[in-house]
Amino acid sequence: MKQSLLFAPTLKEAPKDADVKSHKLMARAGLIKQTAAGIYTYLPLARRAMNHIERIIREELDQRDCSELLMPALQPRDLWEESGRWGEYGPELFRLKDRKDRDFCLGPTHEEVITQVTRDYINTYKKLPLALYQIQTKFRDELRPRFALMRGREFIMKDLYTFHTDDQDLDLWYDKIMKAYTVMFERMGLQTKIVSSDTGQIGGKEADEFMVMSEVGEDTISYCDTCQYGANQEFSGLHEKDPCPKCDSGTIKEAKGIEVGNIFKLGTKYSESMNAYYNDKDGQKTPVVMGCYGLGISRTLMAVVEQNSQEHAMVWPKEVAPFYVHVIPLKTNQEEDMAAAQSIYKTLNQQYDVLIDDRDERPGIKFKDADLIGIPYRVVIGKDLKDGLVEFTNRYTGEKKLVKVAEISQHIHR
Amino acid sequence: MKQSLLFAPTLKEAPKDADVKSHKLMARAGLIKQTAAGIYTYLPLARRAMNHIERIIREELDQRDCSELLMPALQPRDLWEESGRWGEYGPELFRLKDRKDRDFCLGPTHEEVITQVTRDYINTYKKLPLALYQIQTKFRDELRPRFALMRGREFIMKDLYTFHTDDQDLDLWYDKIMKAYTVMFERMGLQTKIVSSDTGQIGGKEADEFMVMSEVGEDTISYCDTCQYGANQEFSGLHEKDPCPKCDSGTIKEAKGIEVGNIFKLGTKYSESMNAYYNDKDGQKTPVVMGCYGLGISRTLMAVVEQNSQEHAMVWPKEVAPFYVHVIPLKTNQEEDMAAAQSIYKTLNQQYDVLIDDRDERPGIKFKDADLIGIPYRVVIGKDLKDGLVEFTNRYTGEKKLVKVAEISQHIHR
Repeated sequence: MKQSLLFAPTLKEAPKDADVKSHKLMARAGLIKQTAAGIYTYLPLARRAMNHIERIIREELDQRDCSELLMPALQPRDLWEESGRWGEYGPELFRLKDRKDRDFCLGPTHEEVITQVTRDYINTYKKLPLALYQIQTKFRDELRPRFALMRGREFIMKDLYTFHTDDQDLDLWYDKIMKAYTVMFERMGLQTKIVSSDTGQIGGKEADEFMVMSEVGEDTISYCDTCQYGANQEFSGLHEKDPCPKCDSGTIKEAKGIEVGNIFKLGTKYSESMNAYYNDKDGQKTPVVMGCYGLGISRTLMAVVEQNSQEHAMVWPKEVAPFYVHVIPLKTNQEEDMAAAQSIYKTLNQQYDVLIDDRDERPGIKFKDADLIGIPYRVVIGKDLKDGLVEFTNRYTGEKKLVKVAEISQHIHR
Repeated sequence: MKQSLLFAPTLKEAPKDADVKSHKLMARAGLIKQTAAGIYTYLPLARRAMNHIERIIREELDQRDCSELLMPALQPRDLWEESGRWGEYGPELFRLKDRKDRDFCLGPTHEEVITQVTRDYINTYKKLPLALYQIQTKFRDELRPRFALMRGREFIMKDLYTFHTDDQDLDLWYDKIMKAYTVMFERMGLQTKIVSSDTGQIGGKEADEFMVMSEVGEDTISYCDTCQYGANQEFSGLHEKDPCPKCDSGTIKEAKGIEVGNIFKLGTKYSESMNAYYNDKDGQKTPVVMGCYGLGISRTLMAVVEQNSQEHAMVWPKEVAPFYVHVIPLKTNQEEDMAAAQSIYKTLNQQYDVLIDDRDERPGIKFKDADLIGIPYRVVIGKDLKDGLVEFTNRYTGEKKLVKVAEISQHIHR
């Protein structure tokens, strides 16, 4: 892709309300733009990275027998009356009326809809288990939206729902999905920790959170540095360096974390209130046992930026990078330089997503933008072209060297 | 994928309100399920087909130098006051207030947001042209939602916006995108006709619609059977068999069409009202010239079903098919049959998306479901397996024959 046609409006200064490193960098790199408090547009570089995150999620869930569907954002009040949440849910729920004065809400979560969608179908044990997910925009009217994508009012989530005959089958799937999450986050270049959490407005019996360790974030988590088990509640009252109450030898550490996933053993909360029953092998009417598994996609994007950036630069993890190679001719008005750049672009673009900086800008501006944009491999066409050499940078290692044009691709690694 | 784990709740009868062939078939094949009037869940088979439609759109637009972004559904009133549409737009606009009593609407279209997103960036002619699109959920509170996805209240669209220095450049891009549309629809297996249309609530100078010829649909279009030019307005008052006023030899034909795309030369309507100006080569402040290009993804899905179905069966076009090959062992309790089915599945699944009907159901039910689900190539494992043969059906041609297990893949064509 030509950079002149890519919409990446980099900024010299971050917006005043940006008080987190990743928020500053995302605004400066032209990744996001605010439309209203807590409401953002994902610009092309962010959309490309997010498409990769979505692809990784689909690949990992599909190969574990989950199926994708898409539920509506507009949800009628009657479904929420069935579950009892219309009254329970606070002002975070966006509510509206249609032209005929009927009540709707904008879904912050989809337990009601998925139960309505599946309850007629799951009439016998033969139809279980079942695992359905969606990638969708969600809404929550936060009192104080902040940290950009970390606490937004409109955000993107993957939500998976599983259905089972009994608790044992739920446990099996819960473990399977928990492992899938670990794989997904690793592929996205994120180090996560699993901590048990409360069940909040979703409800259910048991829940776990996937936390990205970070200097910023909404939660402080305490965890044992030896047995690696961590939990907000169980360890509450405990502080840095206290002995671990779970194992003999560990001590407690504290960290400010970003929650990127939250998974729940719902049990029969929704199936009982919304009448989702199946006939078991003995013909007995039995409530379906459910699990639900959230993964905040827009928030994960921000966590990726947070973990992989410095103040004026970032480097995208391989599988999430919006482009893989950045080709930068320094003098776009020099015919030979541009011809070489075009030729390098064409060759590499057969194998990788390549961005070519064809803009008529000064080298200083090009390098500043390139550092912000964070493409992992960089090829600079400059004064050594006369000797058939270009400057090649592996931005993961920082290694910079002159390489022969014909040998560039040998230095790029998947 | 195992059919036992796929959520495709086929029905014997279509819902009572389904009065269109495609609506009946989509409900019966387990493609969609209604959550409220005009509000649907896209079940896994539909979501898979829609993912293919989205992939085709991305491929065709990306290779034409368009970039994907994602704008919010929640749009603040002040943006719509700038364009003047807050007052102009009727009760089709879903409006709501946030917890701080500020007005928002749910976007039926994104001219305001895209102008806000780009106007600071496009400060000079050097930043033009620019082409940005998104694939996103839109909202329109229809008075009478009907025909399922054809006139829904929550629907999925691709909307592209282009930005230019002048009308000549807009014309060039308008033609380029018009050609891209023709290619996209062809790849989706749809025959479309282009007719000029009015500019409606979007505004602008000139607009064209892409119509799928169909017995159902919201619009009757009249077109010349010789010069192939058709137009709602220009030909209004003309009827079937009238002579064409445009060419010498043609006569007029009428058809009930489904509008799947609508493209507009917006001109400077939004840039002037919303202050999107750039400096031209002489330093003169000039309004940006804009185009916008909609493509109804959920509606296109329905048009694909309408054009490729009969009452009890459909066959998906190749590039849109949710699965490509359907492997159906008739006796799941026979060890040899299942072993052969699994082996065929594993081999074909390396190259194609394959669905295997592992359900313990009677052959009659399996065939009825398979006809509804509409997978193009079918392999039935039955009584001829003892001779190393399976029944192979190419559902495009209807040709059915016994083939050797080892030779199945020779009969499947991309």
